[in-house]
Amino acid sequence: MLTQRVHVDRVFHALGDPTRRAMVEKLSEGPLPASKLAKPLAITLAAVVQHLQILEESGLVRTEKIGRVRTCRIEAKGLSVAERWISERRSEWEKRFDRLGKLLENPE
Amino acid sequence: MLTQRVHVDRVFHALGDPTRRAMVEKLSEGPLPASKLAKPLAITLAAVVQHLQILEESGLVRTEKIGRVRTCRIEAKGLSVAERWISERRSEWEKRFDRLGKLLENPE
Repeated sequence: MLTQRVHVDRVFHALGDPTRRAMVEKLSEGPLPASKLAKPLAITLAAVVQHLQILEESGLVRTEKIGRVRTCRIEAKGLSVAERWISERRSEWEKRFDRLGKLLENPE
Repeated sequence: MLTQRVHVDRVFHALGDPTRRAMVEKLSEGPLPASKLAKPLAITLAAVVQHLQILEESGLVRTEKIGRVRTCRIEAKGLSVAERWISERRSEWEKRFDRLGKLLENPE
């Protein structure tokens, strides 16, 4: 439970930054070398590397270094954590509406 | 398109903070007066009010003041924006896998 909470914290912290979200958007279209992420986002390679570390720790991105090239690709785990958190909120909230509906049907 | 982007930015910025996520979690269970949010989260009412403003601006929470009580409730709009952003990433990514699969089936 605690691990799950830490994971949720990491994923939403990672997605809270617009540059990191732009990196996730870019990588959803296909894997890229880290160097190719810097230019379209108008940030330095050093900044890309820092953001990548946060994205990797949260399970949103996976990177692999072959020779001198670090290839980055999207990872399913992180997005699933965020999806699950949102759908849990929605289901709690819908359950409450169901209870309210039943109460209105049978006020006794 | 730009408005959509601004909305995505606001929602993920709002959800990036663990206290605000805890407020959304609490409110998914049912509406509450702002004062009742402060105690379980061990923060001041002033901090609650600041967080509520960010949550309201992003469409995650709606508040209504009747007399001296400000009642807070979850709003569907904000969560839907986050859900849509995630599912767009997933669908782009799955489309790519489909293309790869077809390429492997028919390499000519």
